[in-house]
Amino acid sequence: MTLNPALDLTYRVGELVRHGTHRVSAVAERPGGKGLNVAGVLHALGEPVLATGLLGGATGGRVTALLAADAVPAAFTPIAGETRRTVAVADDVSATGFWEPGPPVTPGEWAAFVAHFRGLLRDADVVALCGSLPPGVPVDAYATLVRLAAAGGVPSVLDTSGAALRHGLAGRPDLVKPNAAELRALTTPADTGRHEAGAARALSCGARAVVVSRGPDGLFALTRDQAWRCVPPERLTGNPTGAGDACVAALARGLRDRTPWPELLADAVALSAAAVAAPLAGAVDPETYRRLLPAVRVRAA
Amino acid sequence: MTLNPALDLTYRVGELVRHGTHRVSAVAERPGGKGLNVAGVLHALGEPVLATGLLGGATGGRVTALLAADAVPAAFTPIAGETRRTVAVADDVSATGFWEPGPPVTPGEWAAFVAHFRGLLRDADVVALCGSLPPGVPVDAYATLVRLAAAGGVPSVLDTSGAALRHGLAGRPDLVKPNAAELRALTTPADTGRHEAGAARALSCGARAVVVSRGPDGLFALTRDQAWRCVPPERLTGNPTGAGDACVAALARGLRDRTPWPELLADAVALSAAAVAAPLAGAVDPETYRRLLPAVRVRAA
Repeated sequence: MTLNPALDLTYRVGELVRHGTHRVSAVAERPGGKGLNVAGVLHALGEPVLATGLLGGATGGRVTALLAADAVPAAFTPIAGETRRTVAVADDVSATGFWEPGPPVTPGEWAAFVAHFRGLLRDADVVALCGSLPPGVPVDAYATLVRLAAAGGVPSVLDTSGAALRHGLAGRPDLVKPNAAELRALTTPADTGRHEAGAARALSCGARAVVVSRGPDGLFALTRDQAWRCVPPERLTGNPTGAGDACVAALARGLRDRTPWPELLADAVALSAAAVAAPLAGAVDPETYRRLLPAVRVRAA
Repeated sequence: MTLNPALDLTYRVGELVRHGTHRVSAVAERPGGKGLNVAGVLHALGEPVLATGLLGGATGGRVTALLAADAVPAAFTPIAGETRRTVAVADDVSATGFWEPGPPVTPGEWAAFVAHFRGLLRDADVVALCGSLPPGVPVDAYATLVRLAAAGGVPSVLDTSGAALRHGLAGRPDLVKPNAAELRALTTPADTGRHEAGAARALSCGARAVVVSRGPDGLFALTRDQAWRCVPPERLTGNPTGAGDACVAALARGLRDRTPWPELLADAVALSAAAVAAPLAGAVDPETYRRLLPAVRVRAA
């Protein structure tokens, strides 16, 4: 689920010159936003998935068309505002990014989405709640949605940051997947600042389990009575943008299937690595996934 | 008329950092492309106008919606490709521009536009043919359209550059408005390189009259038997982007009204200056226009 999706544009230029004018040699357009990446990964794995959230305007229409072209099932609530764009300008060295603010969402549109979400829960086995909140959506939106899911017997994975994460934890998500930076924002100066302290803080705020994504250092998982560490068997070079979303995809699938923790974490580490090996966020390299999965080691911490 | 219109986006950021990531604080969207600016200026002056050209996809739909919001009458031929965007990233110092390539146009779409254009000529008093050609449109497109207009008794103003200008001149437009750089591209090393030589070259290539826009130095006009210079009475600071389009708007109106040359050029200089004084391309500052018009001086050269 993506409340603040985007149309992600990638512009290829020879060299970015500050205050210069650039003819873009190639434009790539894709549906953007964490939840859409999660849906894309699950769809690529052959899992039944339905992408939902808020979309509006001409840009929202373009996102809908691109999802349809990828054959990803979707049912979004329409809003009057224009879905945002992100622009990544890639030159021969690196990329320069520009992120539009999200569109304003009215109270009526938010209420319509909540009703829509309740309806979708009837056929759902798990929900992944991903990304930032656009202006106008209540800061405790994720707590509301997590509670509705729990009331319907549907487990939830939450992947967001800042105030949306802090308030969302109060809804008691089954699993929350912050990265190290998102976790630091939860801690107070009294905490040690290490990810163990942050994960403990997330539990005390309401999460039933925490999986911290630590980039090439793998995953750290903490529940009320257990802790695990899981590290990829090799370092991969590539595009780390979609690794966190692939991790959420694996966690959501495992939560649905009640996969035991060691297997669940190994799957999430292998799928994250397979996302690094794929050129685009929302995609995974199947060969890397197959190769790494048996080699991932998990140990109790 | 705009064969390669755009959705112009302006992003406001604090400071553009090469290879950094920027949260855009404000997004402005407007219909872009020279012909749409010309239509916008004429509409603002209360002149009856119809914007036409090629538009496609979600981005084309957004341009249509923005034109409707500005109450500018429009009748574009639809294409399957996506209308391009331009992104201007404005920081506290200056702007950095990114121009997408135009969408591909099929032979069938081009034929449909030519038929549409013929139909529109029945109610037209003058046509302004503006801007670049998207891929797939024949390089002599403007010559074709100018000849169709002439056959229907409709005078034409041509404002384009490069190969589209060179080939367009063969259609014998009533007026062509290059700027100094566009004119230089017409000249050969044997020419003196001054704008008088370029204007003479444009006449010899087929134009019936040439008006060279020279920024703060005003206009130079050349016909078979006359030459004029027209300079603004004062230097204006502001945004020069839309000055050429305001000039074309004045020239098109004057061609329609058979305005004598001195008055026509004075009007074009005052309206160009009024565009510099307005914050956005496609707009003019009415007060500047009223103030400068009586003060512009024209002399035979």
